[in-house]
Amino acid sequence: MGWSGGDRPRWTQHTFNCPPKKGQTDRMADQYAHTREDNRPTDAPAIPAIRWEEPPEGPVLVLLDQTRLPAEEVELVCTDASALVEAIRSLAVRGAPLLGIAGAYGVALAAARGFDVDEAATALAGARPTAVNLSVGVQRALSAHRAALAKGGTTGQAAEAALAAARQLHREDAEASTRMAEHGLALLDELLPGGGHRILTHCNTGALVSGGEGTAFAVALAAHRAGRLRRLWVDETRPLLQGARLTAYEAARHGMAYTLLTDNAAGSLFAAGEVDAVLVGADRIAADGSVANKVGSYPLAVLARYHHVPFIVVAPVTTVDPDTPDGAAIEIEQRPGHEVTEFVVPQAPVVGAGAGTPVAPLGTQAYNPAFDVTPPELITAIVTEEGAVSPVTAEALAEQRARSSQAAGNG
Amino acid sequence: MGWSGGDRPRWTQHTFNCPPKKGQTDRMADQYAHTREDNRPTDAPAIPAIRWEEPPEGPVLVLLDQTRLPAEEVELVCTDASALVEAIRSLAVRGAPLLGIAGAYGVALAAARGFDVDEAATALAGARPTAVNLSVGVQRALSAHRAALAKGGTTGQAAEAALAAARQLHREDAEASTRMAEHGLALLDELLPGGGHRILTHCNTGALVSGGEGTAFAVALAAHRAGRLRRLWVDETRPLLQGARLTAYEAARHGMAYTLLTDNAAGSLFAAGEVDAVLVGADRIAADGSVANKVGSYPLAVLARYHHVPFIVVAPVTTVDPDTPDGAAIEIEQRPGHEVTEFVVPQAPVVGAGAGTPVAPLGTQAYNPAFDVTPPELITAIVTEEGAVSPVTAEALAEQRARSSQAAGNG
Repeated sequence: MGWSGGDRPRWTQHTFNCPPKKGQTDRMADQYAHTREDNRPTDAPAIPAIRWEEPPEGPVLVLLDQTRLPAEEVELVCTDASALVEAIRSLAVRGAPLLGIAGAYGVALAAARGFDVDEAATALAGARPTAVNLSVGVQRALSAHRAALAKGGTTGQAAEAALAAARQLHREDAEASTRMAEHGLALLDELLPGGGHRILTHCNTGALVSGGEGTAFAVALAAHRAGRLRRLWVDETRPLLQGARLTAYEAARHGMAYTLLTDNAAGSLFAAGEVDAVLVGADRIAADGSVANKVGSYPLAVLARYHHVPFIVVAPVTTVDPDTPDGAAIEIEQRPGHEVTEFVVPQAPVVGAGAGTPVAPLGTQAYNPAFDVTPPELITAIVTEEGAVSPVTAEALAEQRARSSQAAGNG
Repeated sequence: MGWSGGDRPRWTQHTFNCPPKKGQTDRMADQYAHTREDNRPTDAPAIPAIRWEEPPEGPVLVLLDQTRLPAEEVELVCTDASALVEAIRSLAVRGAPLLGIAGAYGVALAAARGFDVDEAATALAGARPTAVNLSVGVQRALSAHRAALAKGGTTGQAAEAALAAARQLHREDAEASTRMAEHGLALLDELLPGGGHRILTHCNTGALVSGGEGTAFAVALAAHRAGRLRRLWVDETRPLLQGARLTAYEAARHGMAYTLLTDNAAGSLFAAGEVDAVLVGADRIAADGSVANKVGSYPLAVLARYHHVPFIVVAPVTTVDPDTPDGAAIEIEQRPGHEVTEFVVPQAPVVGAGAGTPVAPLGTQAYNPAFDVTPPELITAIVTEEGAVSPVTAEALAEQRARSSQAAGNG
């Protein structure tokens, strides 16, 4: 596997002081098992999270509506960029890598249907602020579109170029998933040579967020396929329950041994010695290695440090934003309070305040950041398609970016 | 205020290493304010969580059904101990001190209505395993009942004695609330001399769990009345949302400035320097000072330590169980997985798996401990009606118990 910088990772740089426990057993990982027999066959085919189609009425972008999972597998058909913007805002399509792919296809869709491409690109790039992949994907299709026009191509040729760029990004992301899974599993096996990994994950980072099998989830899936996953602990991930709804859905499809828990029960698992590693994705990685990810990731990083458990971030190199110097510079999306004060059944799309069942007194205001920021000193390793970076430093991340650009240039 | 042991508390015994933040502002505590204007008048009268009534048909125990709050204020009328056992199990009545009071009244009810008192006491004491107050309250009424019979009293006189014991416990708990609030506020003022306290709390610890105004919540309420509460951050407290449903309800009734958040967003508040102190209750305190409290308390203690924020437990002396030597000896109640895998609207009582809306794939198993254990080394102080214990040691807690027994003996 490709260690950035050539040094061996230093996993044991922990300075916290959780006293060792006596007589810990492995009871819980088995007691609360969701066994394979309960699940669908291993590696059942997944419904694609996103696909481009060209029916006679004109090209469309088809999304699996993630707000309705796991109750229903419903597809959303977008015929223009504004429909896609709405799908992004409502989280029907979500997850950093997939947002990049969606953004690129959105530009291609606007071009193919003769809409104002710049306007569509601006709307798409601004649909959500935190995931850098979204604007990167938009920019990539937009650049291809502009380059084709600049070379004297027709609008049709420019639209083709935008679509080709989106398809290329889609393919690259799938390939990156495969490589992240390989690097991540090698890292796990090195950190935990005994196998039988008990992995805690947060939010959803599988095929639903990716052109391939995802980021952190793809690593757990690789461990499962290799027979080395003992338990996937799935944080439910409030307020929108992406863990309960989406990660559990993906884990069940693949026949993985998984167990769901409330986010606040993770502490009990750590205290009982039931977590061997934490694997999460990332929505934006600052140049210094600070990681913005789903709210609740930072508390897990603090718990992991206290309990001497590796905290591993898995994300494609495109998630690293060299223009964001550090964690303080990352804009954190604040989402509406009604996501916390009301419960919305998964079958119904989120349509705003008052649409759900109140769970708090009327008038209650909520603090509802979508993401939090984990500083590099709490991150054991960042795994990208280029390998694992550990310790996490600006230099090592810059080197991965350079290597990735070089590979793209040579490819 | 009564420091146990006479030494000044040592608040700053932190060994974790959260680097100090630059340029932190106090923005969030005000930005996400639930302002007083939104709320009902300050100190609106509360509906009692429990009361004994003697209508012509015979004595009953009337409970405010906490599973239906905040949507509805519905009372449950128990005519026998088995109805009360069911109310305890379904969390219609909950919270460590209130469970003690309910248990004592339950014995009195069985006695007054001519049921088998020993059988009722056994069923009540075993209704939930973690809160020691429940069995202590049951035992107190049972002892009074037995003593009356042993002195040659009639069954009617014995029933009177059991009721008198329950009423006495109820009164004592109310008085203990008042004294905990005083001691707790004095401690806060000493720790945070600038005032403008921003307090994070978890679960529900107010009038709904107590014969008085509660434990941790009573301290925040005292700060509010003294004009020194700037913000009460209310963890929603999954899976049953006691924070969103009950603490927000109590905070709104009192016109406190409060803001609701998902449990996993607390990390962001700590990181932003928005939390001055954490106040929680306790369901059982082991002799060594280990505190069992609502699941999610331990992660807050770890976060508080990492961010150099005081973590304060507020509970009556009866919560300290000298027969439980340490945290490992505390039995943690494991609750049904459907509390996590399904959402139940607050209007409907919890009636078992399948009654709610699924939020995870069918067949998903969940790890759902009701409580976690925070070791004494992570607790800045334990505040009881006898004063604040800090640092938390077995000796200091034993001394508080001795002082409390002496006061009871003299009273």
